[in-house]
Amino acid sequence: MTTDKPVDKNMLGNETNVEENITWLSVEDCRLRLSGFAFFEEDHKLERIPNRLKSVFNEINPCLNELGGNTAGGQLSFRSSTSRILIRAKITAVPNMVSMTPVAQCGFDCYIGESPKNLKFFGITKFDRTQSEYICEVVSKLDTTKVKEFLFHFPLYVGVKEVEIGVDSNAIIEPPTPYEKEGKLIFYGTSITQGGSASRPGMAYTNYLSRKLNLEHCNFGFSGNGLGEYEVAKMLSEIEKPLLYIIDYEANSGTNGRMVKSLDDFIKCLRESHSEVPILVVSRVPHLMDLLDESAGTLRNSLREFQRGTVEKFRSLGDNAIYFLDGYTLWDDDFDEYTVDFIHPTDLGFYFMGKGLEPIIREILNKH
Amino acid sequence: MTTDKPVDKNMLGNETNVEENITWLSVEDCRLRLSGFAFFEEDHKLERIPNRLKSVFNEINPCLNELGGNTAGGQLSFRSSTSRILIRAKITAVPNMVSMTPVAQCGFDCYIGESPKNLKFFGITKFDRTQSEYICEVVSKLDTTKVKEFLFHFPLYVGVKEVEIGVDSNAIIEPPTPYEKEGKLIFYGTSITQGGSASRPGMAYTNYLSRKLNLEHCNFGFSGNGLGEYEVAKMLSEIEKPLLYIIDYEANSGTNGRMVKSLDDFIKCLRESHSEVPILVVSRVPHLMDLLDESAGTLRNSLREFQRGTVEKFRSLGDNAIYFLDGYTLWDDDFDEYTVDFIHPTDLGFYFMGKGLEPIIREILNKH
Repeated sequence: MTTDKPVDKNMLGNETNVEENITWLSVEDCRLRLSGFAFFEEDHKLERIPNRLKSVFNEINPCLNELGGNTAGGQLSFRSSTSRILIRAKITAVPNMVSMTPVAQCGFDCYIGESPKNLKFFGITKFDRTQSEYICEVVSKLDTTKVKEFLFHFPLYVGVKEVEIGVDSNAIIEPPTPYEKEGKLIFYGTSITQGGSASRPGMAYTNYLSRKLNLEHCNFGFSGNGLGEYEVAKMLSEIEKPLLYIIDYEANSGTNGRMVKSLDDFIKCLRESHSEVPILVVSRVPHLMDLLDESAGTLRNSLREFQRGTVEKFRSLGDNAIYFLDGYTLWDDDFDEYTVDFIHPTDLGFYFMGKGLEPIIREILNKH
Repeated sequence: MTTDKPVDKNMLGNETNVEENITWLSVEDCRLRLSGFAFFEEDHKLERIPNRLKSVFNEINPCLNELGGNTAGGQLSFRSSTSRILIRAKITAVPNMVSMTPVAQCGFDCYIGESPKNLKFFGITKFDRTQSEYICEVVSKLDTTKVKEFLFHFPLYVGVKEVEIGVDSNAIIEPPTPYEKEGKLIFYGTSITQGGSASRPGMAYTNYLSRKLNLEHCNFGFSGNGLGEYEVAKMLSEIEKPLLYIIDYEANSGTNGRMVKSLDDFIKCLRESHSEVPILVVSRVPHLMDLLDESAGTLRNSLREFQRGTVEKFRSLGDNAIYFLDGYTLWDDDFDEYTVDFIHPTDLGFYFMGKGLEPIIREILNKH
């Protein structure tokens, strides 16, 4: 059985061992902005769940701790005049998914621009899929006469034990342009929220939105495990400076009845700590089965109306900061083309989710 | 190092060993329509290059023979009342790409509809990435009271030694609704033409177009090897019943000068056998470097004008069946988001290529 490399040299890796005149920047370098890890200050780990809550989650749903080690939503930013960008990473597993690219699961991508408003996609870590450590040259030959903005997205479906960014030793390195405003978009949801199956990390809809809105976000998508646990809501409520909660977990909790059981308490838990922070409840994007299977369609409609009704109930009780969005409105009639496997959006599905949510989130943030 | 399976059960495979009451259909079953393999009748192999030409290609570019073994563009269709679809395949290699999903490289996807005009995406082979043989259940629980149209797309970047489709033993099996018209769209080009980096085979722009236009197509994208060889043009000219040639190889032959050397002869070779079959020359989609690097932009513009000029020259000599399309018009200003690696389109990029080309191809076919 051959495992030979592709014939096409453009499909080969960009691993490198040319490290002369390269300085390695740690994620704790004070000139770099690490974001998306809400509890980093507590444990100094690249994880989404703090150590102190792991025993609680071990009791209620151990999968959360495993998935919490995935770095979805992590970002690293700075400004620099470097000509090259290297990424050196140690990850917790090699790629193991049939319907997601290795680079989306375990790699990084890089955006560069004159300002956060005009970031452009520039490259990925094209690492050896059989290894859990890599050094890749993501970008080279950049114009060193200009100081530019750099943004890196972390892997979506693996843990990162260590990561460093390599830049020219003589490059200017300075903090990035600040976010549009302080605070965090906090996404809670499923595999779709976690980014399955984007082609590379930056195309997950959460990363897309963070980039387009120039706001920090934290991704609490737990693949297959968006089950609306009260303890998860409690954790989300402890995050400092929330700007907006986006609650999108129907895909894991609809058919098993967990959404109907949990949504009210989930929202109340957030409201106990944050009475005026806006909350956006998003019902799930369409599945073909909703149209083909009468019972699936009926259930889907009732879950959408349940979510709409829950939001309306809170509003009728005086909560003016809670909103509902029908996820069906994010995709058009071609939606069957937007997933890789009947469930998980590709870049195509994510792009339209991001495009659809962007103005809605802007409007909510403008009001609050 | 863990290579454990994903936590999320929705990300797991759909391999099966439940074959009771399943009948296996061979690609040579007379009720099935195998398409996209222009020379199948000669060698009865699922390859894109006939045996008789392999010694020629070994002389000029052996990579063509290796890539010719990849099944990009292969399709299998029939009508059936089956409740399940299984796919049993032996492939020539296990997945080995960092920026493409295993299912796009080595797997199949399946579309189903009442007619070829309303086919919808229904499922993939979620096989074990470490194996070169698999049996997967792609679809189940279909309504057996209706005879429906089934369309399968072959893997894009691997060879298929054997493949069979499993259906209910008591299901009706009959030939698919015929194509819109007889004849083949013949695509010639690069890795982009071959389908790198679609998320699954059906999202390659060539498969998208074949589906939307309901026409047979043959994919002669040769990853990294769209070099405009005269012998390749000769092979394409030998294919029976061409409807339209789409020539899209700038991405492999622009910067190395091979396009300028070859395009005129390539077209003349096709014209020797097919004086009235329409030809559409498409310059490549934009790359960010075209905008950032002055010399890249200048070269890109000159190559586009070279292609436009070549087409105009043929037209001025009385050839009214040759057309040029500026590939820049297929993507909008967000185009940097449309690739996985700065070069290869994702489903997002392919979707817009398909959407853009569809009306243009329709118009050309209507005229000829």
